[in-house]
Amino acid sequence: MQTLADIGEDALIRRLVAGLKLDASVIAGPGDDCAVVLPPARGEHLLLKTDTVVEGVHFTTETPPRLIGRKAMARVISDFAAMASTPHHALITLIAPPTTPVKRVVEVYAGLRAMAELHGVNIVGGETSRGDQLIITVSMTGSAPAKRWLARSKAQAGDTLWVTGQLGGSIHGKHLRFNPRLAEAHWLAKNLPVTAMMDLSDGLAKDLPRLAGSCGLGYKISAADVPKTRGCTIEQALGDGEDYELLLALASEAPANFISAWKQAFPNLKLSCIGQLVADMNEAGLTQGGWEHFR
Amino acid sequence: MQTLADIGEDALIRRLVAGLKLDASVIAGPGDDCAVVLPPARGEHLLLKTDTVVEGVHFTTETPPRLIGRKAMARVISDFAAMASTPHHALITLIAPPTTPVKRVVEVYAGLRAMAELHGVNIVGGETSRGDQLIITVSMTGSAPAKRWLARSKAQAGDTLWVTGQLGGSIHGKHLRFNPRLAEAHWLAKNLPVTAMMDLSDGLAKDLPRLAGSCGLGYKISAADVPKTRGCTIEQALGDGEDYELLLALASEAPANFISAWKQAFPNLKLSCIGQLVADMNEAGLTQGGWEHFR
Repeated sequence: MQTLADIGEDALIRRLVAGLKLDASVIAGPGDDCAVVLPPARGEHLLLKTDTVVEGVHFTTETPPRLIGRKAMARVISDFAAMASTPHHALITLIAPPTTPVKRVVEVYAGLRAMAELHGVNIVGGETSRGDQLIITVSMTGSAPAKRWLARSKAQAGDTLWVTGQLGGSIHGKHLRFNPRLAEAHWLAKNLPVTAMMDLSDGLAKDLPRLAGSCGLGYKISAADVPKTRGCTIEQALGDGEDYELLLALASEAPANFISAWKQAFPNLKLSCIGQLVADMNEAGLTQGGWEHFR
Repeated sequence: MQTLADIGEDALIRRLVAGLKLDASVIAGPGDDCAVVLPPARGEHLLLKTDTVVEGVHFTTETPPRLIGRKAMARVISDFAAMASTPHHALITLIAPPTTPVKRVVEVYAGLRAMAELHGVNIVGGETSRGDQLIITVSMTGSAPAKRWLARSKAQAGDTLWVTGQLGGSIHGKHLRFNPRLAEAHWLAKNLPVTAMMDLSDGLAKDLPRLAGSCGLGYKISAADVPKTRGCTIEQALGDGEDYELLLALASEAPANFISAWKQAFPNLKLSCIGQLVADMNEAGLTQGGWEHFR
């Protein structure tokens, strides 16, 4: 089977970028020292995010390569969802052993490209290098209105805590096939008084303390109200990680009927109240758990 | 010695970003799902670049960690120099084995931060993951005037070819300690009719065909005119790579006295004419060589 060493870097890159769909915001895509694009519209901030998937950590040698690419792209888009923002331009860093079959890398890119196109993201450049294991890093720009961008840190004591979807058991497939909650995030930011939002990547037990900590607050949650994936225990729902659902805080002036409006907009996705932010930072009613990268 | 596994991801990140210098363009730096920054000024394009350094490829286990960080940051700034643009905001992806001493990573970051500060680049976020070898990826934004951004591809037949500095032998130290030619690139773009420019990362023998190819042109160079690092052969000057000097094409209307103006501005850096672009794409007067990532 043809490997990266057989065809070399320039031929590989030509193959990976052939037929890339680029919209009118791209002045110069792959091929120059830097990509050149139009900046966000006036009145918008520029948002930046990078994220990486590593063989043996985020996927295995057995993972279908299209799903590796899909996941690498979807993880970053999920971060733009977390801020109710709009992703625009992506750079891809590919690290792979020279013995990697060209076909495997082409498939990874097919997954990256399909997920990017689904959300209107342009792949405008990247970088390749050899390394001991397959690693894909996606760096992305996006934009959000300067007057109402959504931070993790602006919630108040008394704000209620909500999550989309169901938590736990992602390793059985969802971690490769999740849909970034971009449309849902925009709906929430438009229709509700969202005071803080983030995406759940390391598990509620780890991510909720981060959100509360950013706000200088504590939290109380009701374990019984945490939406669990079918077959999962509460420990798995709190600690498995890679849910890529939204965790958000709502101010008390949320309209009374918003749950039915949500159900109309997203009939197949739960929106569950799981607790509340409280003033005392030491109040933190969750067992420890969640994904720790270096342990 | 304390390792990454000992302190964990959150404590590591807190330590790495403590005391980061951020200017007024940064609305929200590390700590949220995305960084939030001001976009380029009106009339400017947004430029994007990512680049990576891998243990065993771009540095060794013996390389002083500050120099690893320095190199990782300087390589990307060199790409912004290649387009005579201004770098602004960087995201850092760090992949490392859990057994890595915390001190090693802190030193890598010290090198990244020092080089970033030198060129006014804000480190606004990043990503960490475990992996089998140390890898640092730097993704960066920059800006350039929309009306005169500098591509690789706009030279004409008859334009002369120039390089800054001396080529070859970078492995003996320069690859870790080079200064990105940002000031030089801005001077060139301001004072001369530069029609194409790039930075030399893979060696003239590999990079010049890329530049000429982007323009749909061939080239003639005079081996005797290629500026060689002291002690280097012409083969080394052409093929070693990692020079991080500028390769540029000048239109014929370049003013006669520009070399003396250059010498006044940059007394310690050569600017050498090495040849010319020609209409026939098959004319390519260089031996093959240069750095190939997957061979």
